[in-house]
Amino acid sequence: MTKTNVFPKIEDKTEREEGTVFAPNFDAHGLLPVIVTSAKTGEVLMFAFMNAQALALSIETGEAHYWSRSRKSLWRKGETSGNTQRIVEMRTDCDQDVIWLKVEMTGAEACCHTGRRSCFYRAIPTGDAPGAALSLVWVDAERHFDPDAVYGHGAAAKGTLKSS
Amino acid sequence: MTKTNVFPKIEDKTEREEGTVFAPNFDAHGLLPVIVTSAKTGEVLMFAFMNAQALALSIETGEAHYWSRSRKSLWRKGETSGNTQRIVEMRTDCDQDVIWLKVEMTGAEACCHTGRRSCFYRAIPTGDAPGAALSLVWVDAERHFDPDAVYGHGAAAKGTLKSS
Repeated sequence: MTKTNVFPKIEDKTEREEGTVFAPNFDAHGLLPVIVTSAKTGEVLMFAFMNAQALALSIETGEAHYWSRSRKSLWRKGETSGNTQRIVEMRTDCDQDVIWLKVEMTGAEACCHTGRRSCFYRAIPTGDAPGAALSLVWVDAERHFDPDAVYGHGAAAKGTLKSS
Repeated sequence: MTKTNVFPKIEDKTEREEGTVFAPNFDAHGLLPVIVTSAKTGEVLMFAFMNAQALALSIETGEAHYWSRSRKSLWRKGETSGNTQRIVEMRTDCDQDVIWLKVEMTGAEACCHTGRRSCFYRAIPTGDAPGAALSLVWVDAERHFDPDAVYGHGAAAKGTLKSS
């Protein structure tokens, strides 16, 4: 079980962009942004962060682990809700400071702490200059589990958990 | 042309998660992370940031605008390379602090400053504990334009531009 940062650092930009050595470029807080998409549908499910430990555990186990900024703790996705994420593919970007995970969800196949499949359940209309009255449009907003039953009363509403 | 932050703020978590008022929750630097996917293939193309002005311009024009953290300036995607992005759909997440754009690319249909279609052209192998020798695997790494020709000699290698 890897607890410290085992990853090398690469300072040279060409080497980082055109090489095959995985040298994740963590931010000032020791974190990488992570984009999570469904391996089945391609939709974006959630956005989270990994520290070096979460990254190492995700690579080793093939199960998505994150760093919770609000709880300041390592977080195995689904440890409370049962909605775990098996990593089908993991990629990094040109300058190795972002991770993209394609995952298969288990359990209710829902990812958001509100019970929805994806955290991105509202669309922003485009075409007019935005004003104070810009209304979001519900998209795929059906709940696949009851957040109160899974996290305890008021968890979703009071926001004690960012994601399941 | 919107130059200041026209967006309302919502403090109440339930209202932010379950309402239809668009109240983007910018970070301490006044930025929102943006996930950009291809409307055609669903693949993740790039990851960037928007400030309030870039967000307002993206909504108004339907063309992707970002904030360049390295250049500290507003950036209309494709202004140098011609590889612009037309926004097909724009979504926000549960707590309204992330944006997801589905876009159609013009020009060479390439998004990354290295000339690749997507910035995510290398995969990270999973299944073993990572060590210093973890090798990335090339995926869809073909160049669709020559970065030197588009940005000037050495732009990609020297990293003067983060994205096209």
